[in-house]
Amino acid sequence: MASLSYLAFCTTTIIRCSSNRDNGHEPNKQNVNSIKINGTSSYPSAKVDLLGLKNGVAMTTSIVTSENLYINTLEVRQNIPTKKQLVDPFRQGLIIEEGVGYRQTVVIRSYEVGPDKTATIESILNLLQETALNHVWMSGLLGDGFGATHGMMRNNLIWVVSRMQVQVDHYPIWGEIMEIDTWVGASGKNGMRRDWLLRSRATGLVFARATSTWVMMNHQTRRLSKMPDEVRAEISPWFIEKQAIKEDFPEKIEKLDDTAKYVNSGLKPKRSDLDMNQHVNNVKYVRWMLEAIPEKFLENHQLSGIILEYRRECGSSDVVQSLCGPNENGILEDGLITDGIQQNNKISLLNGFSLPSGIIEGNGLLQSLNPGPSSYTHLLQAKGDSKNEEILRGKTTWKRKINGIPFQA
Amino acid sequence: MASLSYLAFCTTTIIRCSSNRDNGHEPNKQNVNSIKINGTSSYPSAKVDLLGLKNGVAMTTSIVTSENLYINTLEVRQNIPTKKQLVDPFRQGLIIEEGVGYRQTVVIRSYEVGPDKTATIESILNLLQETALNHVWMSGLLGDGFGATHGMMRNNLIWVVSRMQVQVDHYPIWGEIMEIDTWVGASGKNGMRRDWLLRSRATGLVFARATSTWVMMNHQTRRLSKMPDEVRAEISPWFIEKQAIKEDFPEKIEKLDDTAKYVNSGLKPKRSDLDMNQHVNNVKYVRWMLEAIPEKFLENHQLSGIILEYRRECGSSDVVQSLCGPNENGILEDGLITDGIQQNNKISLLNGFSLPSGIIEGNGLLQSLNPGPSSYTHLLQAKGDSKNEEILRGKTTWKRKINGIPFQA
Repeated sequence: MASLSYLAFCTTTIIRCSSNRDNGHEPNKQNVNSIKINGTSSYPSAKVDLLGLKNGVAMTTSIVTSENLYINTLEVRQNIPTKKQLVDPFRQGLIIEEGVGYRQTVVIRSYEVGPDKTATIESILNLLQETALNHVWMSGLLGDGFGATHGMMRNNLIWVVSRMQVQVDHYPIWGEIMEIDTWVGASGKNGMRRDWLLRSRATGLVFARATSTWVMMNHQTRRLSKMPDEVRAEISPWFIEKQAIKEDFPEKIEKLDDTAKYVNSGLKPKRSDLDMNQHVNNVKYVRWMLEAIPEKFLENHQLSGIILEYRRECGSSDVVQSLCGPNENGILEDGLITDGIQQNNKISLLNGFSLPSGIIEGNGLLQSLNPGPSSYTHLLQAKGDSKNEEILRGKTTWKRKINGIPFQA
Repeated sequence: MASLSYLAFCTTTIIRCSSNRDNGHEPNKQNVNSIKINGTSSYPSAKVDLLGLKNGVAMTTSIVTSENLYINTLEVRQNIPTKKQLVDPFRQGLIIEEGVGYRQTVVIRSYEVGPDKTATIESILNLLQETALNHVWMSGLLGDGFGATHGMMRNNLIWVVSRMQVQVDHYPIWGEIMEIDTWVGASGKNGMRRDWLLRSRATGLVFARATSTWVMMNHQTRRLSKMPDEVRAEISPWFIEKQAIKEDFPEKIEKLDDTAKYVNSGLKPKRSDLDMNQHVNNVKYVRWMLEAIPEKFLENHQLSGIILEYRRECGSSDVVQSLCGPNENGILEDGLITDGIQQNNKISLLNGFSLPSGIIEGNGLLQSLNPGPSSYTHLLQAKGDSKNEEILRGKTTWKRKINGIPFQA
């Protein structure tokens, strides 16, 4: 398929026509004939109507179907590399780690931050997904799927994530330049581990680490699959041992039941929640998880860690319940007793801590002396007629914020 | 303030400490001492704890408050230019149009596309916002606000958008490289127009055009303000006449009432819907608007145009209603009678149109011969005790999709 795909790319029909599309408003129109993109190909391109049509009429004398033309045109526009690329100036990515790791530079965008001007956890998860896919993109292995290799496509296989863990020490702010490194390794006989490090480009400080495990699923049967030898041959040369988060025994997450303290019911996926695999995107799961936590707690805390254990796909027709409960140690009264601390505008940090007077005088003393992470356990389940089906179990860990600033333990 | 801000930047306290933060997993750690970023400054930076703390203890002998330190550190990390920049390699942006316009190259990311692998209208709106802010960023005029200049900050003013219009001829696909141009112009005596062009880098073809008008609002009183002379002096040198969408008389949008055909009630903003201005972000408005349109219509149509007329801010405590109704000409039966067309897998385009047999035989002939845009009128309103308050009026225009491919009229 690699060669077939390459052939398809090389024989793509570009129809030139003299369509006078309105360019009256483009004084900076550059000469776009025969642009070299990405080092992979050079092709003529200017002023092509996307369907090769002018006023709905095909501009050739041979028979073309709009469908073929559309697919060929998409290939040219998407321009997936068919050979390993070492650098991509547009993605600001490069291959590192002796040829197997990937690093991408990103600027935190205005719409990726929340009201506090720091990147949201959802934005961070999006960037992890993006860099993972760009890693595969650069490898020359990417088929047309959502990260699937050519060998996987031949075997009708797609990637599904079984576990994901993210630790965030610091959240990047609007406009901050970050470097994201990602790489893959073996996970058991049939799985793959993918790790990430997010680093501030200015300081070199690691802001976040993440690890995930992936297995393959048959696209038609929806059953998990062994890793075929041809796929192993494609991806194993990229495997390295290094781990972003060291875990000898991954933490098990207990299963909540209907007695969970907080329950959000009747959650329905919308069209905009579906991704290229036609499933509810992981990021939506996290939003559902976090929305079950009391607003008051979210105001005074910052997410410092998240673990997701995926059990089952969520389809567009599922009706979902998000359950969560505070864990026994770590969260006192869900953090709701500590409002007094918000009254203080200054914290003196000379010679260790001068505790704000509000804490000493108020009723939040115990928690203030124990400002370590608090945690919640989560469950997303699809509402069934007879019983509910687990979609994912999760655990979130939290840091206290004081005057909007995360407490540095 | 421009000079004050510059001073504040230059005197930013960077605390060096020898914190041995775990770098064990970073084999590619570069030397980050004294990195030059963006051409504006050179500063020492390596291994600084973000709050300048080690184990919670400040690393200086002078008195510092965590708040001051935090703000100073944020300035270094964000690194907003205090002088005009011509190029920003990280944002992939450059100043064009004889020094007043801005062009940014972007790659359409995996999470910016929907199930059909084309960018969503929400992603396009996000990219418009991002490039607009980066334009101000490059100008050297940006204060710490959401696009507000130093002069605006001195006058407690923020930008509010009063009208926005976007026309999308083609949607970019996953991985496609786009160039977005944006520029500003005068709008009446006290307003500003901002326009955009989105162009495929490979073909030079314009995919989308947008225009918007902006006025200033006092941050405290929430009342609209005249443009102060000092602000005019800052921004008017950037004004040009060119318009992305030519309109002699902007289209007026009728106000829907409770008899509207489709009503979604009880919409409540969530934390994740708020932006840096602490308001519900525009993109959320568009999602609410589109979610009121019947699913069946959305499946067979692609948005080709949107007009938004903003009337009032939406705060976090508002409960919102999204109303919409099809316009009389253009939409027959809300596009629901045309399923027959979906049965056809091929459309022959030799010598004009061979209409798919399903259309000729089916009951959708009239609409098929008139495949031009259909449109809906929209209203978002905040539910009040006695009466509802308009948040925005909108109009959306739609193209039919045939076999998932937008119909090229």
